Amino acid sequence: MPDPLPLLDSVAAERAVRRLDRLTKPPGSLGRLERLAVELAAIQGEALPRVAPPAMLVFAADHGVAVEGVSAFPQSVTAQMVANFATGGAAINVFARQHGARLEVIDVGVATPLPEALVGHPRLVNERIRAGTANLLEGDAMGRDEGLAAMAAGVRGAERAAAAGCRSLIVGEMGIANTTASSALLAALTGKPVAGLVGPGTGIDAERLAHKQAVIERALAARRPDPADPLDALAKVGGLEIAAMAGALLGGARQRLPLIVDGFIATVAALVACRLRPGLRDFLIFGHRSREPGHDLALRALDARPLIDFELRLGEGTGAALAFPLLDSACRLLAEMATFDDAGIDAARVDG
Amino acid sequence: MPDPLPLLDSVAAERAVRRLDRLTKPPGSLGRLERLAVELAAIQGEALPRVAPPAMLVFAADHGVAVEGVSAFPQSVTAQMVANFATGGAAINVFARQHGARLEVIDVGVATPLPEALVGHPRLVNERIRAGTANLLEGDAMGRDEGLAAMAAGVRGAERAAAAGCRSLIVGEMGIANTTASSALLAALTGKPVAGLVGPGTGIDAERLAHKQAVIERALAARRPDPADPLDALAKVGGLEIAAMAGALLGGARQRLPLIVDGFIATVAALVACRLRPGLRDFLIFGHRSREPGHDLALRALDARPLIDFELRLGEGTGAALAFPLLDSACRLLAEMATFDDAGIDAARVDG
Repeated sequence: MPDPLPLLDSVAAERAVRRLDRLTKPPGSLGRLERLAVELAAIQGEALPRVAPPAMLVFAADHGVAVEGVSAFPQSVTAQMVANFATGGAAINVFARQHGARLEVIDVGVATPLPEALVGHPRLVNERIRAGTANLLEGDAMGRDEGLAAMAAGVRGAERAAAAGCRSLIVGEMGIANTTASSALLAALTGKPVAGLVGPGTGIDAERLAHKQAVIERALAARRPDPADPLDALAKVGGLEIAAMAGALLGGARQRLPLIVDGFIATVAALVACRLRPGLRDFLIFGHRSREPGHDLALRALDARPLIDFELRLGEGTGAALAFPLLDSACRLLAEMATFDDAGIDAARVDG
Repeated sequence: MPDPLPLLDSVAAERAVRRLDRLTKPPGSLGRLERLAVELAAIQGEALPRVAPPAMLVFAADHGVAVEGVSAFPQSVTAQMVANFATGGAAINVFARQHGARLEVIDVGVATPLPEALVGHPRLVNERIRAGTANLLEGDAMGRDEGLAAMAAGVRGAERAAAAGCRSLIVGEMGIANTTASSALLAALTGKPVAGLVGPGTGIDAERLAHKQAVIERALAARRPDPADPLDALAKVGGLEIAAMAGALLGGARQRLPLIVDGFIATVAALVACRLRPGLRDFLIFGHRSREPGHDLALRALDARPLIDFELRLGEGTGAALAFPLLDSACRLLAEMATFDDAGIDAARVDG
């Protein structure tokens, strides 16, 4: 668990506001982009914030509950996708190249052995804590100490990103059955009924969805996670990659990195982290609204309004990555636009 | 007026669909981004479309109606902003640099003489048809031949963009009082009441807004634009830059360039162009939803759903420019992601 978080810098924010009002445009005419620029200034503590280059950390782990048949894909796909991330073929790799991001894939608990050829791969970090969680129908997903260890792995990821000169952080995930764990965790933390938040994940039919809902309800009844103790809930019904994401967000905030939150699973991780350190909320920028029904509930729990709504349901950090150029645009505005004085323009408005 | 427009290429679209379904992600999980990729393939007639580099054409002109005090800024600001575009200090310049765009500022009717120093500036194109429109309260904004001439200037802009190797087109504008002309034109073409669509433009108070509405209503009563004749409406209550934008869109479609439509004024120009050539609609991608109230009406008239909603009200092409990286992401997905076969991943879904 990282030390207490820094506070937003209101002086830097105020300087950004004053600069925005001198730029060659009607005041406020760039709408949400202007508010984003001010938010980034406050997070970084700089009147001219900068979000490029971004870091992308993709945490991978397996879920024992996959044996219950809650996902459309077999568990082996987690390891296969880790290999795909390492060799650059996944959607998040495409966006990482587009945006000049530093991408790491961090194995915090993949169940299937990775191919030999990947050992020592520069994009792949081995922080494996255990070979996937236990089946939460039969026991706690993991021990509290394992949850803390996964969070610490996440913190280290954020520290490497900052040390490498990255200026913003996108946290993504891969783990077959992790919408099941995230839905359980969200229900546990908010007390909301499972029926309203469970969804098709990467794509299951209505029958399997009903089964998924029943599995989550039975797991919550059996595990009895404590809603007032986020670490308890995380250990009992969460996941290793979810814990690591929560840690990475806390570690990133400590480094004053703007944190671009991805979809459903990332938002649940953010909710866990905010329950542990409410001051984290100030560092979060929500990239996109996912098609997974639980995402709306998780967003409401954090009073969040995402930047884009593209009906994604992939994870990996892809929705956050798509939104990255908007943050970059906000920073560039502040740094590059001419002021009315620079440009010799009649700023005195007719009605002003 | 350009020749008939090409048709969407359904073969290229079908090839894009098939490729998307083989990529290493659950089918459809990239939501709207996948539909965008297919749309771009159909527009360009290529299974692997490419939108970079984009062209940005900013058309500038003045409006005689500015003397009625409908804007927050004096007319001189149009010329001053043209200078700002040429020297790189405006918001659209910032986004053009961010996205590697080819930007041209095209003077189709600025009333104030431009600074001597700008003559021959490489980013500035002189297509001035007249020194601004007439005051539409007192007479037709321009002649029908002048509207056609402005459209032809727009077509030439699109042709230069294609000849320079640009792969998509953003059309923007600058013209003090042009929300007044656009609102009049939109009311004329749709038959909707002015009260529901007039807005604050770059920022006026309630009293001036009521005055702006009254000016538009009086102009429509006096000019009697023919809703069935888009060129008549354009000439009577439109603007030179609006005509040029309509021409640029038609010219761009003829070159199979995906056309990223900006906010209120650009959407009204798109509506004019679609009334002239309904097939244009297939080439339009709507970048953003503006805060100007008439924009919603214009979008509905074109059955359009914009990509982002950032509450901008600046124009220049800025909202379309902000959305550009999303189109670029869609293209890169198709071109760069691994297929299940490439990556050796178990594509056979458990329930499939």
